[in-house]
Amino acid sequence: MRNLNEDTITQAVLARHAGMSNERLREVMTRLVQHLHAFAREVKLTEAEWAAGIQFLTETGHMCSDKRQEFILLSDTLGLSMLVTAQNNSKPEGCTESTVFGPFHVEGSPEHQLGDDIANGAKGEPCFVSGRVRGIDGKPVPHARMEVWQADEDGFYDVQYAGQDEHRARATLHSDADGRYHFRTIVANPYPIPHDGPVGRMLEALGRHPWRPAHLHFMIQAEGYERLITHVFRNGDRYLDSDAVFGVRSTLIADWVRHDAGIAPDGSRVDTPFYTLDYDFVLNPIEGRAAA
Amino acid sequence: MRNLNEDTITQAVLARHAGMSNERLREVMTRLVQHLHAFAREVKLTEAEWAAGIQFLTETGHMCSDKRQEFILLSDTLGLSMLVTAQNNSKPEGCTESTVFGPFHVEGSPEHQLGDDIANGAKGEPCFVSGRVRGIDGKPVPHARMEVWQADEDGFYDVQYAGQDEHRARATLHSDADGRYHFRTIVANPYPIPHDGPVGRMLEALGRHPWRPAHLHFMIQAEGYERLITHVFRNGDRYLDSDAVFGVRSTLIADWVRHDAGIAPDGSRVDTPFYTLDYDFVLNPIEGRAAA
Ligand SMILES: [Fe+2]
Ligand SMILES: [Fe+2]
Repeated sequence: MRNLNEDTITQAVLARHAGMSNERLREVMTRLVQHLHAFAREVKLTEAEWAAGIQFLTETGHMCSDKRQEFILLSDTLGLSMLVTAQNNSKPEGCTESTVFGPFHVEGSPEHQLGDDIANGAKGEPCFVSGRVRGIDGKPVPHARMEVWQADEDGFYDVQYAGQDEHRARATLHSDADGRYHFRTIVANPYPIPHDGPVGRMLEALGRHPWRPAHLHFMIQAEGYERLITHVFRNGDRYLDSDAVFGVRSTLIADWVRHDAGIAPDGSRVDTPFYTLDYDFVLNPIEGRAAA
Repeated sequence: MRNLNEDTITQAVLARHAGMSNERLREVMTRLVQHLHAFAREVKLTEAEWAAGIQFLTETGHMCSDKRQEFILLSDTLGLSMLVTAQNNSKPEGCTESTVFGPFHVEGSPEHQLGDDIANGAKGEPCFVSGRVRGIDGKPVPHARMEVWQADEDGFYDVQYAGQDEHRARATLHSDADGRYHFRTIVANPYPIPHDGPVGRMLEALGRHPWRPAHLHFMIQAEGYERLITHVFRNGDRYLDSDAVFGVRSTLIADWVRHDAGIAPDGSRVDTPFYTLDYDFVLNPIEGRAAA
């Protein structure tokens, strides 16, 4: 435990953890230390680069608040979030795929009735969303709890507006007895992830843009089924092949259909052009996990 | 760039960085992404573990202030700091070895004259430190700038006391025309690294103690020589073989010699027992680098 150098320190750190009783923690920490050290050795990390890394992590931490999660943005933009999502959500073919959770989910979003306008003043062209929630066996999933959230026309989620504590374009709904759902909101548009912080500076240094293709977030929970966290992506979006967070899946792409002003699907009259989106979700029964 | 899974995402992220003009940044980011992803794959990181990691990093960031650097503590306790120090400071045999910088250095510590009592009220038994700064060729290094800092008897650095902005047991000195230095301070004692934050909780979960063997920090700079960042460790300390930050080197261990009350080396009368430490530093000339 003395005179450790770049070749011997990894084993010395691991030896210090040998007595740990939590086996999973030991496994995770062992690999973490091995990869952290291997990274530093392979690039022969300099002291100035190490200091820049400490500074970057510190600024990333200071950027985090109850309304901003810069470490999730970091994980998202480095592809870690999609990797973790993918390796923990393999499902039988035909189930709706998962994608990244993102940093903009909020606990306790307002309960709405089917058919409500969940925009609550969020800026954007009207959009009428509908569909059905089913199991992989085709059976409707009644009363599924559906959380939905999205950015507005300017590319911001409600939580990104300082001093505005009202939920907008964000709701909790429940599918009906036949698994059907419908609600009014605003059209989804592409937006850049928040890039006025350390992660934005990192993307700039890497020559990468911060844009995500237009999407609508869903989290769907129903008894007997695995929780589904996903997006529906807007077909035709210019960023579908360069999503800043690597989340796009072909099966999650759907058409937002544009209509002239007139009668909306819910029978109401809309004086401006509006959109419709129809998307069905297929959940994986919990007993079906073994088949995945 | 669509339908990425745990096997394909790494290449997709790296492909996004292919156009980067800064080659060093590309190399560092490539290895970082590869190791980050390999870690997550090898342990099959779960979503709950990922979330715990995000939470840990966020709390670590929030713990950082102008007086506390929790990310340096994290790097230190995972052995990364010693690894980076070792691989960037190989020197010819006979030079004073480097060790970790630690989080308690402060820019602009007060200038003192040789012989001053730098304790400035810090609690602890008196200690008289002396020695010489030389080059590897044996030549004295005159007027070397020596920064020294240490913890007090209770194990705290001055910056750890809330609402106390005065520097204590911390100074900038210069060696004399013959490379000699001497000053009065307090005796070094073992101390636990700050463990009331996320890193402390991590150490506890890992079954590790947070203690460091007693030491005195030095940063020595002189024209024509490589900067030396090191400690002198106190011989006999019970933590020499289990330093929480893996920094101990045999060549840096020295005796703090205890004396009964009486005449100190500087000719003054001390009414309590006191200590002396004599330690010589050997610097590496900048032109000597190639020989390392
Ligand atoms: Fe989003
Ligand atoms: Fe220290």
